[in-house]
Amino acid sequence: MVLNPVSIIIKKRNGKDLTRDEMKFILNSYEAGKIPEYQMAAFLMSIYFQGMRLDEIKTLTEIYIESGKRITFPKSMKTVDKHSTGGVGDKMSLILAPIVAACGGKLPMISGRALGHTGGTLDKLDSIPGFKTNFSEKEFKNIINRVGFSIISQSEELVPIDRRTYALRDVTGTVASLPLITASIMSKKIAEGTQNLVIDLKVGSGAFIKNMNTARELGEYLSKTGKSMGQRVTVVFSNMNSPLGEYIGNALEIKETIEFLKGKEIPDIYLLTKTLAVEMLLLCEKASSKNEAEDMIDEVIENGSALDHFRRFIEAQEGDPRVCEDFSLLPKSKHEIPIIAKQSGWINEVNTQDIGYALIDVGAGRKILDSKLNYAAGAYLPYKVGDCIKNKSEIGKVYCDSLEIGKNVAIKILNSYSISQTEINPQNMILEVVRDNTEFIPPQKS
Amino acid sequence: MVLNPVSIIIKKRNGKDLTRDEMKFILNSYEAGKIPEYQMAAFLMSIYFQGMRLDEIKTLTEIYIESGKRITFPKSMKTVDKHSTGGVGDKMSLILAPIVAACGGKLPMISGRALGHTGGTLDKLDSIPGFKTNFSEKEFKNIINRVGFSIISQSEELVPIDRRTYALRDVTGTVASLPLITASIMSKKIAEGTQNLVIDLKVGSGAFIKNMNTARELGEYLSKTGKSMGQRVTVVFSNMNSPLGEYIGNALEIKETIEFLKGKEIPDIYLLTKTLAVEMLLLCEKASSKNEAEDMIDEVIENGSALDHFRRFIEAQEGDPRVCEDFSLLPKSKHEIPIIAKQSGWINEVNTQDIGYALIDVGAGRKILDSKLNYAAGAYLPYKVGDCIKNKSEIGKVYCDSLEIGKNVAIKILNSYSISQTEINPQNMILEVVRDNTEFIPPQKS
Repeated sequence: MVLNPVSIIIKKRNGKDLTRDEMKFILNSYEAGKIPEYQMAAFLMSIYFQGMRLDEIKTLTEIYIESGKRITFPKSMKTVDKHSTGGVGDKMSLILAPIVAACGGKLPMISGRALGHTGGTLDKLDSIPGFKTNFSEKEFKNIINRVGFSIISQSEELVPIDRRTYALRDVTGTVASLPLITASIMSKKIAEGTQNLVIDLKVGSGAFIKNMNTARELGEYLSKTGKSMGQRVTVVFSNMNSPLGEYIGNALEIKETIEFLKGKEIPDIYLLTKTLAVEMLLLCEKASSKNEAEDMIDEVIENGSALDHFRRFIEAQEGDPRVCEDFSLLPKSKHEIPIIAKQSGWINEVNTQDIGYALIDVGAGRKILDSKLNYAAGAYLPYKVGDCIKNKSEIGKVYCDSLEIGKNVAIKILNSYSISQTEINPQNMILEVVRDNTEFIPPQKS
Repeated sequence: MVLNPVSIIIKKRNGKDLTRDEMKFILNSYEAGKIPEYQMAAFLMSIYFQGMRLDEIKTLTEIYIESGKRITFPKSMKTVDKHSTGGVGDKMSLILAPIVAACGGKLPMISGRALGHTGGTLDKLDSIPGFKTNFSEKEFKNIINRVGFSIISQSEELVPIDRRTYALRDVTGTVASLPLITASIMSKKIAEGTQNLVIDLKVGSGAFIKNMNTARELGEYLSKTGKSMGQRVTVVFSNMNSPLGEYIGNALEIKETIEFLKGKEIPDIYLLTKTLAVEMLLLCEKASSKNEAEDMIDEVIENGSALDHFRRFIEAQEGDPRVCEDFSLLPKSKHEIPIIAKQSGWINEVNTQDIGYALIDVGAGRKILDSKLNYAAGAYLPYKVGDCIKNKSEIGKVYCDSLEIGKNVAIKILNSYSISQTEINPQNMILEVVRDNTEFIPPQKS
């Protein structure tokens, strides 16, 4: 039978399941430039509407991976990574990697840039003077062996179908498709060589996923796809109804990361760190129980080992490690504009996505793919849903280089908070944990 | 507000109604080459899934028309046309035009080429030696004034958005969208200058529309869109469960047209001709009642006036009018392969679409846009649903230039008939007529 792109598009459009050959044909032909972007766009939109069965999603992910190079590590290394589905103020990769590495974990991490209203780990790292994220596979492995982790950008050779498809999805309104999200995430995570994966599946006003039903569906796709390819996957559903931590913005989040690793108490970050790091340490078998893992985490923060790993990581990736002691080496904004409350009350709701989009105006995120970032720009926003604020008090700050734009952003951010006159309960940070149920024998403590 | 293609795609994808400005922006930018094909493809697929409200369809049609030139005729001319949604063996335009013109009607007809499994009027005409279909607006009007009708191809200037969008729909699986079908048909019919329109909305195994529910929805879109732009529209729902007439194929259908105009009895063609021509004559006010119209139709066939109009039309469009007397001037195939019944019984069902697709193999239709046609190729298939056939009798013929291909096509066609051992009732040709309800005063007979 001769395969033909239009009949494959129509088959999916009509809600039928595609065979491996059909998917392979359309994706590989696209990657080879033999199928035009417009047919791929129509195909992606059909997937958006008709979805895919789990088997199809697994096959799609496999075809994605097979399109490029795949990095592997010895099984004995029990590599581990964490993937976040994206949020506002989400600096968790930067915090978790040195902690887990300090506990003996090995983390190959391929990260992304800011997308829509959410930040990107690579952009945050780029605010460190000299820091580099494009390394060869050999250098990547070398850094992981020496420091315990490395965070680099996706090379041309890694999952090229995802690179091309992702760019197309972004401009054709087909980003928000769970099967496509699954294939995109899992193909990269498997190709980067992580054998164990914790997914931080963010749910709420600042996440791409706004409700638990959709979140659970995506969680199931992600973990089942990973498991079918030999990965162990744990999914942590976490609250994204308020910005994470106190700071949003690239250099500001590097500063907050370092402060946290030095022992600063930031309740929501601490809670999430504990949960995610525990799951990572259990998966990579550096701890045999939750209690043991929690103790290890507290210890590597207290004894400075986590910060030391972060410092060595910066050095290994050619950044200036002195930023850990001297924040003045990080980019600094010209202005700090206070955000002043207009009424007293409890924070009822935060439109966190709007905050993310507002901060694009000061340069903390990207409007289009090649927008220039202002690494110093961002905001200080310590209050969460359930917190009580007072009329005329300062509830945050905008960091910016233009007073005019900054003032507008401050107004937009203020408008993102809805205030209640009756008390509002604080929300749970951790909504649900679905552990990998693959059996394993805990290592004997030596 | 700045309009942005992705947000318009997402708005339609989410099932929201689009404003005129949004539709205008995306369509005109596309036409101007400022929006790439892949965004248009994603937009079209969103329309396929989410549909459009009637108001949106009207606006879409207006934007289509405004993209190009619009031909107009004096109101007093009461121009009329018929549009078929496409079938197998559908030569009705060729039959109706000379009949209605012979009754005094004026018909500006812009026709299309073969599409999918269905034939195209222009391809049929092209089988007449010397025949031309590309004429200027001036020449088009001139022929209509002299002969009563003209059938030409869509020029570059007429509804250019439809030309580009149509080609894209064909290769992105977005042809079968009722809003897009409506805008495509009605924009061309309004731009060609017809003031009255009869839609032959074909329903059944050989049509694009397989059921009456979808047919009624499309009929409503078509007539309401036409009426909103000052057209009078009557919709005739006709049976396409068997091929129309006895012949399928370009030159073969020209021959059948001429034979019918000379008085040959072909029951299904006669029934459909009567119905469509009556509605056309009523709309363009050449007859004031059904009975009167029917008499006029029979008369112009009997007295040779209809055939004479067909002859003059061929001459005016530079074809050889002697084909009306000498069929040997038409292309002739090398082989005639008999189709032999394998059992006795009543024809229960005909997969007419499969017959259309099978005949593409002998060159009667197109595989791709620039496929070369074999004008002589086709089939003789006189039996309809409800007819009784005898085992080992000849139930049809395939006309072809390659014996091998032709034999295969004969098998495919034979397999398209399903035979019942119990008697099957013949089907109605006319399923429903929805007349234009715009009031008008019948002209006084002089």
